[in-house]
Amino acid sequence: MTPQALLEGILRGGAAVQRRAMAKAITLLESTRADHRAQGDELLTALLPHTGKALRLGISGVPGVGKSTFIEALGLYLIDRGHRVAVLTIDPSSSVSGGSILGDKTRMERLSVHERAYIRPSPSSGTLGGVAEKTREAMLVCEAAGHDIVIVETVGVGQSETAVSGMTDMFVLMQLPNAGDDLQAIKKGVMELADLVVINKADLDPDAATRARAQITSSLRLLGLHGNPEHAHHDTALWHPQVIQLSALQGRGVDAFWAEVTRFREVQTGNGQLPARRQQQARAWMWERIDAGLKQRFRAHPQVRQQLDDTTRQVLAGELPPSTAARQLLDLFD
Amino acid sequence: MTPQALLEGILRGGAAVQRRAMAKAITLLESTRADHRAQGDELLTALLPHTGKALRLGISGVPGVGKSTFIEALGLYLIDRGHRVAVLTIDPSSSVSGGSILGDKTRMERLSVHERAYIRPSPSSGTLGGVAEKTREAMLVCEAAGHDIVIVETVGVGQSETAVSGMTDMFVLMQLPNAGDDLQAIKKGVMELADLVVINKADLDPDAATRARAQITSSLRLLGLHGNPEHAHHDTALWHPQVIQLSALQGRGVDAFWAEVTRFREVQTGNGQLPARRQQQARAWMWERIDAGLKQRFRAHPQVRQQLDDTTRQVLAGELPPSTAARQLLDLFD
Ligand SMILES: Nc1nc2c(ncn2[C@@H]2O[C@H](COP(=O)(O)OP(=O)(O)O)[C@@H](O)[C@H]2O)c(=O)[nH]1
Ligand SMILES: Nc1nc2c(ncn2[C@@H]2O[C@H](COP(=O)(O)OP(=O)(O)O)[C@@H](O)[C@H]2O)c(=O)[nH]1
Ligand SMILES: [Mg+2]
Ligand SMILES: [Mg+2]
Repeated sequence: MTPQALLEGILRGGAAVQRRAMAKAITLLESTRADHRAQGDELLTALLPHTGKALRLGISGVPGVGKSTFIEALGLYLIDRGHRVAVLTIDPSSSVSGGSILGDKTRMERLSVHERAYIRPSPSSGTLGGVAEKTREAMLVCEAAGHDIVIVETVGVGQSETAVSGMTDMFVLMQLPNAGDDLQAIKKGVMELADLVVINKADLDPDAATRARAQITSSLRLLGLHGNPEHAHHDTALWHPQVIQLSALQGRGVDAFWAEVTRFREVQTGNGQLPARRQQQARAWMWERIDAGLKQRFRAHPQVRQQLDDTTRQVLAGELPPSTAARQLLDLFD
Repeated sequence: MTPQALLEGILRGGAAVQRRAMAKAITLLESTRADHRAQGDELLTALLPHTGKALRLGISGVPGVGKSTFIEALGLYLIDRGHRVAVLTIDPSSSVSGGSILGDKTRMERLSVHERAYIRPSPSSGTLGGVAEKTREAMLVCEAAGHDIVIVETVGVGQSETAVSGMTDMFVLMQLPNAGDDLQAIKKGVMELADLVVINKADLDPDAATRARAQITSSLRLLGLHGNPEHAHHDTALWHPQVIQLSALQGRGVDAFWAEVTRFREVQTGNGQLPARRQQQARAWMWERIDAGLKQRFRAHPQVRQQLDDTTRQVLAGELPPSTAARQLLDLFD
């Protein structure tokens, strides 16, 4: 299909045509072939005026915390209320494990077959930066197709939380009701990215969930006092992240969750933080891709390629200062 | 002075000649003029075989925690035992405040005039990356001149702790005896960089210091259990960071501190972690400078310069996808 045909299908196709066009467009955007990439850029630029109207929601948490179970419940809740929901996942390990699609589709049994939902698993190869870029582009396809809620799910390993909080309007951290977890989230700098913290599986041990809620609330308060406000995505003077309890399995707490999301969105829209956050994300995305492109060009440069191993060896052997080595290699690149 | 004369002065000069040559060499290395840089690279490469024998110790903590007071006490203690001590500082804010040299020289009154000590303040301009590079190079000058202990002091703001832990053999985090501080260090990911934590000003409130010690010990234990072992600079199976109390003002705890440093060094030397850490640091330093150089060349490229503002504007206005914008700019650069 030409970019023009894909565009037509995404913007104006009937349900089945549109779904097929979305899948083909995302596959095109995931391709690394130069001609595909050129077509993909053309398509993306044409789609852009039709994007930006969705609520972009990031949900992260360790494997097994209940993200997919919750997204199934939330997605059905939203569809009931007239929304169209897209779910994208970022799983940096899926290139190793062969993807988590099976597990997720099983978990999201009813959502995955619903006509008003679109679920797309993580691209299954590439660096986290590459995977994140593909997900950002897939998000634009979903928005152009009229999905007004886009949920990005990520497992809490590596730097994927930072990537997801950097592409969404609201970043939700899902925790289990036991201590130690919040320390880990603080340590990894993830707690401070959270616009909302939810404690799932409250059905298993309501007392533990209540204790966890108190503990995390106090950690968030301390982070708000001591933290670097630049790290948070919200203005800490205007938004204090709440901690709520859920049972995704029993579908309890979904309405309270949605009320909190709505409240956050109203605050962010009212004070102009939403467009500011999105502009900052667009700028960071551009520079991230420039950095990656520069490094790739550097490594691929014939003279650099020829010299890099030898120079690295000299640096590791203590024969060449690292800063001098860098300058020598950069001179070859010029 | 020619690089050759500087080299001579640093390696074989008498006390006064050597001190002058060190200062001139570091100033040369700090210069951004291209001809200076070429001379500096020549000098650095010639110095390199004479470096690497010192113990490199990083000390960080919030302003006022007592770093300079402690370094004075520690430096005099080490000189008494036959060592030669160099103290370098990284203060990313000094380009704004005009430098902290006055404060530090006052704090290190006796050390700063001692013939067996060499104190050099933070370079007072440039990005953190640039300042860190200069400090790394100054460290090599000090080592070549025979200083067998090099201490790098940094205020705990911004990313300077990461930079200092990335250039030293042992990274020490200095804390005040009150709660909340350790949470901040955990949050910023600094606690996990620490090979040793010291609680200073124990004289003010011994009970609070004891409580802080217990608290930080338990945080470190949890980080060791839950943390990402790749973030720590030591092998967490072989080294459990200790927490000790000090009074820098009263000079109490300096010997216990030094015993812990010595023990760490023995462990690190015995299991081969020291050379591994230094090689990894050299490699990271080289790539950090390459990245910075690539970005600088990109921004300076005539066609990129001409187009960058306009492209950025289109991205922020939502007219151009950030990934497409990055590819367009990279094409200009090619
Ligand atoms: N008891 C209980 N189990 C849950 C809850 N949410 C999810 N689970 C279970 O936890 C397991 C992992 O859930 P899943 O949604 O796949 O987690 P994910 O890896 O975060 O996507 C599954 O067996 C779910 O049935 C909950 O609220 N309560
Ligand atoms: N009571 C007490 N005061 C200290 C101690 N160490 C440093 N100070 C004081 O704390 C202030 C800041 O010390 P300084 O060494 O400049 O801190 P830096 O900013 O971390 O280098 C000075 O007034 C010191 O005299 C200590 O162990 N006990
Ligand atoms: Mg899942
Ligand atoms: Mg100081």
